Amino acid sequence: MEGLPRLGSIETGGTKIICAVGDISGRIESRVTIPTDVPDISVPKVMDFFSDKGIDAVGIGAFGPIDVIPGSEDYGSIRKCERRGWSHYPLLRTVCRGLGVPGDMDTDVNTACLGEYAFGAGKGADVLLYITVGTGIGVGITVGGRPLHGMMHPEGGHVAAVRHPDDLFGGTCPFHGDCIEGLACGPAIRERWGADGKDLGGRPEVWEMEAHYLAQLVRNCMMAVAPNRIVMGGGVMQQEHLFPMIRERVSAQVNGYMDCPETSDMGSYIVPSALGGDQALLGGFMLAQSAFEGRSGIS
Amino acid sequence: MEGLPRLGSIETGGTKIICAVGDISGRIESRVTIPTDVPDISVPKVMDFFSDKGIDAVGIGAFGPIDVIPGSEDYGSIRKCERRGWSHYPLLRTVCRGLGVPGDMDTDVNTACLGEYAFGAGKGADVLLYITVGTGIGVGITVGGRPLHGMMHPEGGHVAAVRHPDDLFGGTCPFHGDCIEGLACGPAIRERWGADGKDLGGRPEVWEMEAHYLAQLVRNCMMAVAPNRIVMGGGVMQQEHLFPMIRERVSAQVNGYMDCPETSDMGSYIVPSALGGDQALLGGFMLAQSAFEGRSGIS
Repeated sequence: MEGLPRLGSIETGGTKIICAVGDISGRIESRVTIPTDVPDISVPKVMDFFSDKGIDAVGIGAFGPIDVIPGSEDYGSIRKCERRGWSHYPLLRTVCRGLGVPGDMDTDVNTACLGEYAFGAGKGADVLLYITVGTGIGVGITVGGRPLHGMMHPEGGHVAAVRHPDDLFGGTCPFHGDCIEGLACGPAIRERWGADGKDLGGRPEVWEMEAHYLAQLVRNCMMAVAPNRIVMGGGVMQQEHLFPMIRERVSAQVNGYMDCPETSDMGSYIVPSALGGDQALLGGFMLAQSAFEGRSGIS
Repeated sequence: MEGLPRLGSIETGGTKIICAVGDISGRIESRVTIPTDVPDISVPKVMDFFSDKGIDAVGIGAFGPIDVIPGSEDYGSIRKCERRGWSHYPLLRTVCRGLGVPGDMDTDVNTACLGEYAFGAGKGADVLLYITVGTGIGVGITVGGRPLHGMMHPEGGHVAAVRHPDDLFGGTCPFHGDCIEGLACGPAIRERWGADGKDLGGRPEVWEMEAHYLAQLVRNCMMAVAPNRIVMGGGVMQQEHLFPMIRERVSAQVNGYMDCPETSDMGSYIVPSALGGDQALLGGFMLAQSAFEGRSGIS
């Protein structure tokens, strides 16, 4: 829309980086997808895309771990990670300085949570949780439309897991083995059952076990922060039959203990993403707008 | 101190209600302890205590579940509970109207968290967790010195528990059986081992099991909200030898995944309450001050 600041959004993922130009109304004017390589190859392509777009600010939803603590020396940098070339890479500073605009950055899940809060299935939820189940399991939290950080961003996928009685799989998490992520992320499904989730549609035991772990994660997040709504997305959640299975198990586990208007209809409490994969990209506009207004990020 | 508003604080517990007069400096001028009975007996005694104290506002840290959602019809009421006479009792309104002052109310654990943040072991921790381990297990969270609520107050003690391999006890939680509270609260210790925790000092297996569950709770809370510090209090935590046992297990479980300045010294990350049992009473002054300034509560 005319008069609104022109905003850039960047979503960095394990295989691709998506860049978009748009504004705070949620309109996406143009976008490009760039393969994720080492920063020296990928980031110049990001700069190229934005160079003639005349953006006023930029927001980045990045794979973690990242430094999100304002005032920290490494604010806006990727933290130590196994992704080649990205450890300690000062992504936010590089992009902002290169483009000469203010910007803000958060984790991909916190940014997706922000996108759902502003434009998607999380509208009106003061405390909103976004859970992504894909290559990893991430949990983003916004409080009043602001991402929650303490000493760092939350890492709710790595809570301890009570095992399904039939599950003998060791788990894929390099840090915790059989945390929820280690037992229920996409790669865990593949390793345990020998096929991708999308090819396991006819195996009810796969989804019964998956729902066991995801319901447990939802229950634990409900107890820990009592969110007003929980949005679930990511590749594994494309299996939409998981939703009723998760809702049923969460209701059974919580067992009436959190008896609120929100939970009286689990169908509107635990909901799929409404943004078709663009949640983090759209959340990036929220970060960019916040940086444009000087409320967060770097100038 | 002269010039500061005179504040009342009320902490309601299972066996006693403590009332105090003081101010936002944390000074307690006078206090009284009243047995917890049905509201019609206990609340008039509370009113009597404050009647000649000339307070300007009141803050209440109450046993849950309570309605903490501003704008809700039952804001400041006790929710449905098994405590005789207290279900749906409009505690905050009754006290505020009776005394003719503004007031605010939160759960005992959120109020204790606020007390530690302002006056105790939680100073400077933007996201602070307070865990009480006693008759129940409660987790309070403050973000920037404000209690966190979503659809209700958090109930972190009721997360799912990965059992200790030697534990055959069924758990005491009437809602979840063997959640963390059900396996590790004071009454669970008594039922499992046949004696109160304070009389089990010579039984290392008791404390090894207790540390297993409490470390798991701490780890899950760390993953879920990445707090800047965790303060632990309550009767069971009087067993100070639990602290190093919990820290050691948390470090092992987190396994370097949350590598922050805060966690580089677990001795200053997971700490005992510094307020000797007065944390909720002192937090009540924070709530009262907030209501006095019109920032929260009812006027």
